[in-house]
Amino acid sequence: MQNFVFYNPTKILFGRGTIPSIGAETAAFSRNVLLVYGQESIKKNGLYEIVTSSLKQAKISFVDHGGVQSNPTLSHVRQGIALVKEKNLGAVVAVGGGSVLDSAKAIGAGAVVAHDVWKFFTGKKSVKATLPVMTILTLAAAGSEMNSGMVLTNEETNEKFGFGHRLLYPKTSILDPEVTFTVPANYTAYGAIDAISHVLEFYMTTRDPDTPVQDRLMEGLILNSITSCDRCLKSPCDYNARANLMWTATLALNGLTAAGLGRVGFPMHMIEHSLSALYDVPHGAGLSVVIPGWLRWYSKKNPGRIASLGRHIFPETDKESLSEIDAADKTILFFQNWFQKTKSPTTLTELGIAKKEIPQIAQNSLRLARIWRLKNYSQQRVENILSLCL
Amino acid sequence: MQNFVFYNPTKILFGRGTIPSIGAETAAFSRNVLLVYGQESIKKNGLYEIVTSSLKQAKISFVDHGGVQSNPTLSHVRQGIALVKEKNLGAVVAVGGGSVLDSAKAIGAGAVVAHDVWKFFTGKKSVKATLPVMTILTLAAAGSEMNSGMVLTNEETNEKFGFGHRLLYPKTSILDPEVTFTVPANYTAYGAIDAISHVLEFYMTTRDPDTPVQDRLMEGLILNSITSCDRCLKSPCDYNARANLMWTATLALNGLTAAGLGRVGFPMHMIEHSLSALYDVPHGAGLSVVIPGWLRWYSKKNPGRIASLGRHIFPETDKESLSEIDAADKTILFFQNWFQKTKSPTTLTELGIAKKEIPQIAQNSLRLARIWRLKNYSQQRVENILSLCL
Repeated sequence: MQNFVFYNPTKILFGRGTIPSIGAETAAFSRNVLLVYGQESIKKNGLYEIVTSSLKQAKISFVDHGGVQSNPTLSHVRQGIALVKEKNLGAVVAVGGGSVLDSAKAIGAGAVVAHDVWKFFTGKKSVKATLPVMTILTLAAAGSEMNSGMVLTNEETNEKFGFGHRLLYPKTSILDPEVTFTVPANYTAYGAIDAISHVLEFYMTTRDPDTPVQDRLMEGLILNSITSCDRCLKSPCDYNARANLMWTATLALNGLTAAGLGRVGFPMHMIEHSLSALYDVPHGAGLSVVIPGWLRWYSKKNPGRIASLGRHIFPETDKESLSEIDAADKTILFFQNWFQKTKSPTTLTELGIAKKEIPQIAQNSLRLARIWRLKNYSQQRVENILSLCL
Repeated sequence: MQNFVFYNPTKILFGRGTIPSIGAETAAFSRNVLLVYGQESIKKNGLYEIVTSSLKQAKISFVDHGGVQSNPTLSHVRQGIALVKEKNLGAVVAVGGGSVLDSAKAIGAGAVVAHDVWKFFTGKKSVKATLPVMTILTLAAAGSEMNSGMVLTNEETNEKFGFGHRLLYPKTSILDPEVTFTVPANYTAYGAIDAISHVLEFYMTTRDPDTPVQDRLMEGLILNSITSCDRCLKSPCDYNARANLMWTATLALNGLTAAGLGRVGFPMHMIEHSLSALYDVPHGAGLSVVIPGWLRWYSKKNPGRIASLGRHIFPETDKESLSEIDAADKTILFFQNWFQKTKSPTTLTELGIAKKEIPQIAQNSLRLARIWRLKNYSQQRVENILSLCL
């Protein structure tokens, strides 16, 4: 095991009926807040009314900042920062999925500095303070509700960059699985695939293979992403299925899985971000294309690690007669088949992306490779991986 | 899944060479601290020198309060509280295992109130503030380094009671597996058994069996307690083995395993506490006696749950041909055999406790049953369980 620091001060309120606590939780920090959300769906389904009633009851005034898009944009974040500065607001309340939460974090960090918020993402400035952020999660996927990361797309430069800092943990995150009952099947699956990818990235890029406590944790999370998602797709209003998937996605990227692994990387995310930036592909759909290709590429380097994952979670790969290579192949095939079963795309072709576009995607991803210090990822290597995603 | 709040703000510094950080970590809270530790071993092995050098370098003055015993006593805690009040100290630094850490927490809570600290344990007073507590862990076992609990023995009344409060989380805990290289074989095993018991208590007393994400997490922790302990016993200076065991024991009782299970209980601890209180049995040794007996008793009520645990972690119980009862029996036997393999006692007889003493042990445990609200545990029930431990 490698040395690590684990510190995660986010308070989680989980379960039915927890959303009306948002007023009291927020009042501990500020009485003037920016309310960040996505499209109009939270107004149609009543969630907006529940949240704003709770804020009003706690005597908190709020300024609306709806309209966050999937693959959230820098320009919308900049508008939020301007609003906070103009109205002198003291906290940010986010109601939505990862895009909304990440936007809220970026607004919270950008509102307390004079420079442009994008400088955090390009590594030109570091975070020294932020506004408190409270979140109400509506999608089991990104894990942003209990981590210190955020991802944003700069539409001017076609860059989708991610960034993390210990001050970016939300103060309180409220997770009510019932609000995810209405998440459509495709986004339910994309969310589960996002959670799987977060665990897979660390499982595969660990610098230390001798961390059985972490391995068993990660294997359990991957397995449960799959089994809970299957239940959600079958019965969208199965509370326990939604709850297990929601908590799994949170645990999948709250820092716990990385403990002891050394400096892990996000190579699959790095490549996927270019798909989202260039083609506005939903994040989970991009991942379901990149994961099998990346694993096929990686299995040439380290089939043993992929085989080990499979042997611990998929009964059909747990046969001693199977060679490492065969067990790795079966594991990759299991993921690909399961993605297909959930009707998620597994090839670039399905996304309408042709072979000739690969060099341009690879080129885009290299910018993030530099910032994320994935030094071994050359243009050629990313092209090779993308070729395995066709 | 049941509703839950998860909030664990302890900062963990894990790994080789982390102990000299104690000065800087403590300086953030106070420059005058009580230094709590156990017997003289930390002076012999150099740890005391490393810790106090770091404190001095950070310009922190400290008052020594050594002498904490295994099964820490109320009287020693009271002396620590008197010292803090007399010298007007601002924080507590603990260097030791669970007994030392729990004593430090009790001193931190007792030092800021006028009433006696035992009133927290009997439920007559609640914690409203505490001194900051920093810890350096020397034994993988109790989990106190990252939780809000503490256990103390009142020698006057022969009561060993435990108590938890959200203000009792240590601010920072430093975990360097190297300091556990010298833990003797019996205490290494007792520590692993303590970690196993923490997970087992929740796994078995859950109010909600439909929490697969939690089940996989708990099964992984139990399995890893066993496999890591085996490695430690074989090679006491195997860093990764010690590291995996240490982190497993921390995760086994940091609140994570309980998320979503509803109100869980500690019936095995309740009974073991009476063994420790009346016979000064090491906690882990008491648990290795109580666990098999309690499981045998519980298997008559719910063999399915025990069988499910076994099927997920012990290959020999994962056969479809086995009935639930048989799989449960095999699981219990697996634990008992493994305890014996580590040379831990598995019967009251081995502890020198005769059948005729059972009523008195049961009577002692009922006091804790009331405080811990284990309402179903009558004198008769505890006697029945203890009879299965003979």
